[in-house]
Amino acid sequence: MNGAESLVATARAAGIEVCFANPGTTELSLVSALDSIGGLRCVLGLFEGVCTGAADGYARMAGRPALALLHLGPGLANGLANLHNARRAHSPVVVVVGDHASWHLAADAPLASDVVAVAAPFSRWVRRSRSARELAGDFAAALAAALEPPGGVATLVAPADAQWEPADGPARPARRAPARGIGDGVEATAARLRGARAPALFLGADALGAEGLRAAARVAAATGAALWCETFPARLERGRGLPRVARLPYFPEQAALSLARFDALVLAGAAQPVAFFGYPDGPSRLARAESLVALAGPEHDAAGALAALADALDAPKAPPLEDAAAPPAPGAGALDPGSLGAVLAALQPEGAIVVDESISSGLGHFAAAEAAPPHTYLALTGGAIGQGLPCAAGAALACPGRRVIALQADGSALYTLQSLWTLAREGLDAVVVLLANHRYRILQVELARAGVAEPGPAARAFTALAPPEIDWVGLSRSLGVPATRAATVEELDRALRRALAGSGPHLVEAVLP
Amino acid sequence: MNGAESLVATARAAGIEVCFANPGTTELSLVSALDSIGGLRCVLGLFEGVCTGAADGYARMAGRPALALLHLGPGLANGLANLHNARRAHSPVVVVVGDHASWHLAADAPLASDVVAVAAPFSRWVRRSRSARELAGDFAAALAAALEPPGGVATLVAPADAQWEPADGPARPARRAPARGIGDGVEATAARLRGARAPALFLGADALGAEGLRAAARVAAATGAALWCETFPARLERGRGLPRVARLPYFPEQAALSLARFDALVLAGAAQPVAFFGYPDGPSRLARAESLVALAGPEHDAAGALAALADALDAPKAPPLEDAAAPPAPGAGALDPGSLGAVLAALQPEGAIVVDESISSGLGHFAAAEAAPPHTYLALTGGAIGQGLPCAAGAALACPGRRVIALQADGSALYTLQSLWTLAREGLDAVVVLLANHRYRILQVELARAGVAEPGPAARAFTALAPPEIDWVGLSRSLGVPATRAATVEELDRALRRALAGSGPHLVEAVLP
Repeated sequence: MNGAESLVATARAAGIEVCFANPGTTELSLVSALDSIGGLRCVLGLFEGVCTGAADGYARMAGRPALALLHLGPGLANGLANLHNARRAHSPVVVVVGDHASWHLAADAPLASDVVAVAAPFSRWVRRSRSARELAGDFAAALAAALEPPGGVATLVAPADAQWEPADGPARPARRAPARGIGDGVEATAARLRGARAPALFLGADALGAEGLRAAARVAAATGAALWCETFPARLERGRGLPRVARLPYFPEQAALSLARFDALVLAGAAQPVAFFGYPDGPSRLARAESLVALAGPEHDAAGALAALADALDAPKAPPLEDAAAPPAPGAGALDPGSLGAVLAALQPEGAIVVDESISSGLGHFAAAEAAPPHTYLALTGGAIGQGLPCAAGAALACPGRRVIALQADGSALYTLQSLWTLAREGLDAVVVLLANHRYRILQVELARAGVAEPGPAARAFTALAPPEIDWVGLSRSLGVPATRAATVEELDRALRRALAGSGPHLVEAVLP
Repeated sequence: MNGAESLVATARAAGIEVCFANPGTTELSLVSALDSIGGLRCVLGLFEGVCTGAADGYARMAGRPALALLHLGPGLANGLANLHNARRAHSPVVVVVGDHASWHLAADAPLASDVVAVAAPFSRWVRRSRSARELAGDFAAALAAALEPPGGVATLVAPADAQWEPADGPARPARRAPARGIGDGVEATAARLRGARAPALFLGADALGAEGLRAAARVAAATGAALWCETFPARLERGRGLPRVARLPYFPEQAALSLARFDALVLAGAAQPVAFFGYPDGPSRLARAESLVALAGPEHDAAGALAALADALDAPKAPPLEDAAAPPAPGAGALDPGSLGAVLAALQPEGAIVVDESISSGLGHFAAAEAAPPHTYLALTGGAIGQGLPCAAGAALACPGRRVIALQADGSALYTLQSLWTLAREGLDAVVVLLANHRYRILQVELARAGVAEPGPAARAFTALAPPEIDWVGLSRSLGVPATRAATVEELDRALRRALAGSGPHLVEAVLP
């Protein structure tokens, strides 16, 4: 058994079932080890951002760590943006990066770079393995680091000679994620809520699972607290039969206004809300400091903390839910974000996984889907675009029985459009609703907010995605994913019904203004 | 004038004419400044790797620094792989990266990361600007750092508030690249060559320009030295009327064998040759240490050093060139790398810029093009794939009168295929010869070299790009670039003639075994 085989055997013993990879020459011993040890599904991404985004989506949905295998510093660099999103989602992801044989580093060969330094800004743990006999143990340590609450990215650099030289065998698999405590904020929070005039809960991480939401609803029933959640949650359960939470608006002045009336804002699974960007004279932190009450962070069992809080408040065990809002009528004729959202929400099946990288066109669906059957919602946690399509691939691999729906802005889709090919190769049940407005609308909105009344040539060049206008149906088909164009409500309804009735991936290009 | 305007005015005064960018909210003040100051061509890349690869290609051909504008840590991360190639090419590239307003960093907003740390591994110079009044001066310093011989990547992090707050005006533009000396190796090299039994010159950087090659040919005429060049030169002038140089083979055992007979290997513009990868029992350095003679490094005027060496050796001023090899006959029927190369070499016009990211299928063209009209050859310097298409875009922007030909492997093209859209938007005269073998053939070769006789499922999954087979004609057209498929010598000949007769971009999918 060589080092590579000892690593793969350790991964397999730890329950890793998928390897998202784009390997090169320095990872071929690991590729051979994947064959000789067996048992892992090998998923090729045609670009590393596909691999890391899929690993993030897989980790969010599988509830266990994901494994990505990348090629040297530049290959890792190509995957960093989606590791940034994974980091913000607290997704346990182990990245193994091959490197030159240790004795070849001094030659400064063309592909050489400081791989540890490349990994560091987006990893909570980085190690360069020193020998084949240490590789399995180092991998086990990486796994443990990725699982350490609240979960994160751990990167192991595996020199080629540490892969091909003899090793002793697998290391003891990392234990599962250590149990998370509920923290020690329950009593103080209960006291604070008893005295609050206008309380609210601000929810993130596992407070947004079904259990956490039900506990939050109990607290709300006992105290009148409003329920809010992060603007971009890693994973939110929602739809009929689940307590409703309001999502914090994106723009900071609206967000600050939403939170201004609360004299107690209880943080459960979330850090305090901050502005996505700073603007001249704009706020940085969105809630008044004196309103903040720390119940549990993302590293805690926030659902458990909320349940304990509900008990401390003598809250009812199962308060009645608010009536679900009536689903909006989709209307007819040309599509807009509102009608698109209504059509999709009306058709999405129970248990759907909605991957939202809609940027400026998704609010209509988010509102409408409150009345949809129960489903899971995954957002772009870190703002690094190009996450939606790979995340959809990873989520679909993690949950074979469930339907994935990617609500995908066109500009962001272009960042990692190679993901479409992976959806096709793996035959994944994912429907991509491609929001084709052929512009970076969010930047056009931001320019208007900054007072640019009449964009000049530079502003137009950098915010318009046409000409030439991208043919999404042709693009999707060329990468192996069947596709349909829908310009009206009726066409979208038809296209979605057909796509959802079929199996395998399908892209619907929704023509938006 | 705000900080952003002072930066753009400084860039313009320094002769910067193009801005390759994918800006976001934190760069909008710079976008507005590009409009208010004017004079720069704004080229959008739909992914940052397009911007940095184009900047590299532009810098190699324009002979002056290129400017890229990117969005925060993740946007920069997306551009790092091609900055790695630019770094290995010694291309002067200034990267400006927006960041959060300085007072917003402490909030650790979703898109926050340590941008300086992200830049560091692939930059020779990094600075985070501290204020609007320092931004122009910092940009001038970045420019000077990028130009410092042998040229490289300088990254300036521009916080949003340093862009929008008041500044004093532009800084004095950075001077042009400082004059390069010829080093002090001429006399010792001449003495060594006089005593050598089997001398050779190993050429890189500006020793591979027309002037450098002619000086090298003089030395060869005086000493019998063989002329060799780096496997992956940043820029090589070649074709009829230019001295011929042999290119060092890729695989280390072949390369070491090629160099073994030389008792003096004179380094001119090149570092000593090293293996691209280390293999078990393989060499790291390819030439015998005792054979190495340092004439000039990439940071020197290597062409000048060669001319001085020729003079010191009393070499003839203009020795006759070897007769050009007869161009190979293209043959007929199904394409292979040899016939493809012959067809292309026979048709490529004088002054063509050949961007070679052919990986495993390009040797046929390289050999055949020796007999082609004079042209420029740009290689994948750093081995980070996804460089060819963006490099072609940048080269075309730098040299509007010349025809760019991208000899492009399919697997590598998929890394930055968004470049096709930029070729279309900018109307660039680039012909992409897409080498469609639907596999990572180089990895299949490496697996065979490693003794894997029968690849298992993992090896097959990670080296085969089909199924599904990518439809390159459809893909290209969907991104705005007209395309033709060619499966035979005759079809390729027809398609290339048509593409080269037209204007604007065209892709020819060459069906290869």
